[in-house]
Amino acid sequence: MSDSATPSTPAIVAAELIGTFWLVLGGCGTAVFAAIQVADGEAGALVPVGVGYLGVALAFGLTVLTGAYAVAHISGAHFNPAVSVGAAISGRLPWSRLPLYIVSQVVGGLLAGTLIFVVASGKAGFEATGGMAANGYGAHSPDGYSLLSALIIETVLTALFVWVILGATDRRAPVGFAPAAIGLTLTLIHLISIPITNTSVNPARSTAVAFFNGDGAPGQLWLFWLAPIVGALIAGALYEPLFGSRSRRAVPA
Amino acid sequence: MSDSATPSTPAIVAAELIGTFWLVLGGCGTAVFAAIQVADGEAGALVPVGVGYLGVALAFGLTVLTGAYAVAHISGAHFNPAVSVGAAISGRLPWSRLPLYIVSQVVGGLLAGTLIFVVASGKAGFEATGGMAANGYGAHSPDGYSLLSALIIETVLTALFVWVILGATDRRAPVGFAPAAIGLTLTLIHLISIPITNTSVNPARSTAVAFFNGDGAPGQLWLFWLAPIVGALIAGALYEPLFGSRSRRAVPA
Amino acid sequence: MSDSATPSTPAIVAAELIGTFWLVLGGCGTAVFAAIQVADGEAGALVPVGVGYLGVALAFGLTVLTGAYAVAHISGAHFNPAVSVGAAISGRLPWSRLPLYIVSQVVGGLLAGTLIFVVASGKAGFEATGGMAANGYGAHSPDGYSLLSALIIETVLTALFVWVILGATDRRAPVGFAPAAIGLTLTLIHLISIPITNTSVNPARSTAVAFFNGDGAPGQLWLFWLAPIVGALIAGALYEPLFGSRSRRAVPA
Amino acid sequence: MSDSATPSTPAIVAAELIGTFWLVLGGCGTAVFAAIQVADGEAGALVPVGVGYLGVALAFGLTVLTGAYAVAHISGAHFNPAVSVGAAISGRLPWSRLPLYIVSQVVGGLLAGTLIFVVASGKAGFEATGGMAANGYGAHSPDGYSLLSALIIETVLTALFVWVILGATDRRAPVGFAPAAIGLTLTLIHLISIPITNTSVNPARSTAVAFFNGDGAPGQLWLFWLAPIVGALIAGALYEPLFGSRSRRAVPA
Repeated sequence: MSDSATPSTPAIVAAELIGTFWLVLGGCGTAVFAAIQVADGEAGALVPVGVGYLGVALAFGLTVLTGAYAVAHISGAHFNPAVSVGAAISGRLPWSRLPLYIVSQVVGGLLAGTLIFVVASGKAGFEATGGMAANGYGAHSPDGYSLLSALIIETVLTALFVWVILGATDRRAPVGFAPAAIGLTLTLIHLISIPITNTSVNPARSTAVAFFNGDGAPGQLWLFWLAPIVGALIAGALYEPLFGSRSRRAVPA
Repeated sequence: MSDSATPSTPAIVAAELIGTFWLVLGGCGTAVFAAIQVADGEAGALVPVGVGYLGVALAFGLTVLTGAYAVAHISGAHFNPAVSVGAAISGRLPWSRLPLYIVSQVVGGLLAGTLIFVVASGKAGFEATGGMAANGYGAHSPDGYSLLSALIIETVLTALFVWVILGATDRRAPVGFAPAAIGLTLTLIHLISIPITNTSVNPARSTAVAFFNGDGAPGQLWLFWLAPIVGALIAGALYEPLFGSRSRRAVPA
Repeated sequence: MSDSATPSTPAIVAAELIGTFWLVLGGCGTAVFAAIQVADGEAGALVPVGVGYLGVALAFGLTVLTGAYAVAHISGAHFNPAVSVGAAISGRLPWSRLPLYIVSQVVGGLLAGTLIFVVASGKAGFEATGGMAANGYGAHSPDGYSLLSALIIETVLTALFVWVILGATDRRAPVGFAPAAIGLTLTLIHLISIPITNTSVNPARSTAVAFFNGDGAPGQLWLFWLAPIVGALIAGALYEPLFGSRSRRAVPA
Repeated sequence: MSDSATPSTPAIVAAELIGTFWLVLGGCGTAVFAAIQVADGEAGALVPVGVGYLGVALAFGLTVLTGAYAVAHISGAHFNPAVSVGAAISGRLPWSRLPLYIVSQVVGGLLAGTLIFVVASGKAGFEATGGMAANGYGAHSPDGYSLLSALIIETVLTALFVWVILGATDRRAPVGFAPAAIGLTLTLIHLISIPITNTSVNPARSTAVAFFNGDGAPGQLWLFWLAPIVGALIAGALYEPLFGSRSRRAVPA
């Protein structure tokens, strides 16, 4: 039946590239443009109206929720190299497809980082350094958390992310809800960990904005490739032995 | 079977008119009535309790989410001339229907703008200028973004909006989730871009409140027709070539 | 088939009573206990951490969303006399059942109002007057809106509430999503109108807390019966003529 | 059919342990790491950006929503000894399974409490006492509520939690929505009651962080076992007599 025809390679590239573009534009864009804002209240008082960490957390989650409803039937809607690695090791994505996914994701993310930079530079008083929502630890952690804390939290949260992805797309889970569950997991992950690392769990997202930062972000980028991928490998390798099922779909989401 | 009987023209007009009324009343109404509020805390301190940009973003998204569950089976629940244009170019709405949709949307929006103005004028200390949630750039951008930044962000975000709409209503996507995905996409779009243009991506929404503003809004209205429609045309034209599917329904959502 | 057996009258009474108890405890309880809070930040600064109007709006909506998934199959999950009136005039609830629904709702609401009062009185420094989340206009409007503004907004928002309820439970709408759509509509209604009337659209909710307030609430209660019921009658009477369908279920939600 | 094969005991242990780990890490972790934050705004002003009680409420709910989509088909996704007790008394979980569930939940919670402590200790300026999101009443209530207020609210809210759980997993409720309804109920419960007890309704969550607090939490822990279990017993015992149905699934969610 034509419904289950395998999508073409260009369609998969477009889905992952646009989806990761959407993830970075939506998540990092909200952080850059809208997290901190004040407005004039009555009697001249300044009232905070920015969306804060809660709005940024919601934005990241909604990029995946909405993007997955749009293209999960094309590419599985990974939008994240760590998720693709977890899908590969758990047997839901052929290893041979992995490079295609990762390159599409990184390119999409970098295009979004560039767009954010261009739009931000049109703001009165814009300065070229800082404020690009880069990930970091130590001196570059939003709240001063150590390298070890960053390493632990990024690894554990990515493992739990992949656990939800594999569970929610298990053939025994209800059909149609996986994009919502997976997107809202990313919101939850950001609620927990923005103050620690600004939250990555996604090497493409970290790479997308690291080089615009003019700060320490490029030198710390290794951690945001290493920890998410280690976390994804752990969760992906444990899923079948622990929960004993073959998934319904070839790709998660 | 009568379930799939084509809705009548009056039903479509009512659905689009009421839906766009709901979008403007819910989104702009929240911005006007509830975004910036303080309340008395303990020890005489003023505590911010208004819903801020996050609440406005949620409100806009919920108008579409709820309105689409109410009438997507009648009209497709566009509530937005740009969405109707994207539906037309992607082959999901006959071009001949487009004027009916757009007129219904603009009239519904203007009625809501009028209602907001009437209710707001019943507030003690109300002043007739400003504060109607108009869209703008440059001096009228909430955070001082340039015309170019506004043009880029409105075009790109509308294109991504139409991408989610066409993908989530694709016959391969899970049934029933499109209104949620599409509504939450509008929330995400507002999270990103309220500080830039006050967020339009919808010419009917911009038109609905521009003329009550007594400020620069009417003179900038052209951008909020041009950019969303260009974005919708790009996304609508690319969907079939990129993702290669014929949609399940005649209208998106 | 026993699945479609009509629920017993005691089950319906329990569902509407517990559901309205849940609505008032969740919505008004959040407003009373949690809307305005500050916590100690670093360097001795007081940081606002209360849930504000956004949290109250979310709470009201979630009471209906969750309560409707729990008992829509029993009673239709109205939890609101105006909704029951809208259901009756649109032909989805027998008029003979209406008194049973309304009495159950008012009793459930009053029990919740009493519980909120008892719990609140266990707070150090509690004072018996004010702060029970009553609805009001004029001097009792949170932001000083007139009687006319209150009358208009309560009527229009209840009409739109009933419009979404009847549409989302229409036999042509996707199955299972109505509780989410209807609950989130109540969230949206609160986002718009807390500053105007503290938001009612529900006579049982207004009655539940009016008499604990020791303020002007009892004398203004008539408006929060009149306006919601008028709005519900308008929307309920117009639905079939405009959208031309017979609903799938005997009760909305 | 192999789809309905009973999950193995190790799979159930893993699901409940990881799920409760996720609940405590997500909920208490957000409270510890992210509730109270300020950032530098323009002109040197400090702007609050932390997620506040609203973010914590959302985080707790999303742990259950996402975890239940991941493993409800394995263990029922209780993540809470009170929920397991409610499931047992309502006939949806064999009493013989109860100890296995409770032990898995408490161990998972304690592991998460330990992880939060380890990560938090990597923050510059971390102090070992306080700030672990413990539950409390009287002097340890966030807003100074009495033991009696705490007892009432924890009992009533757990009863309503179990009511939604049993209703949303009733065979007459729509399939697939229970994890969303149940998770969002936990969000609502937190919106109401964080200022009263810091919200438990879950003895495993209270136990998980009580012993890191170095404050009065261990001595008050009895209430957060007693009240939730009493509430769950009441709701679980009343469900069948009131609403008269045998549930579709053996375990809730």
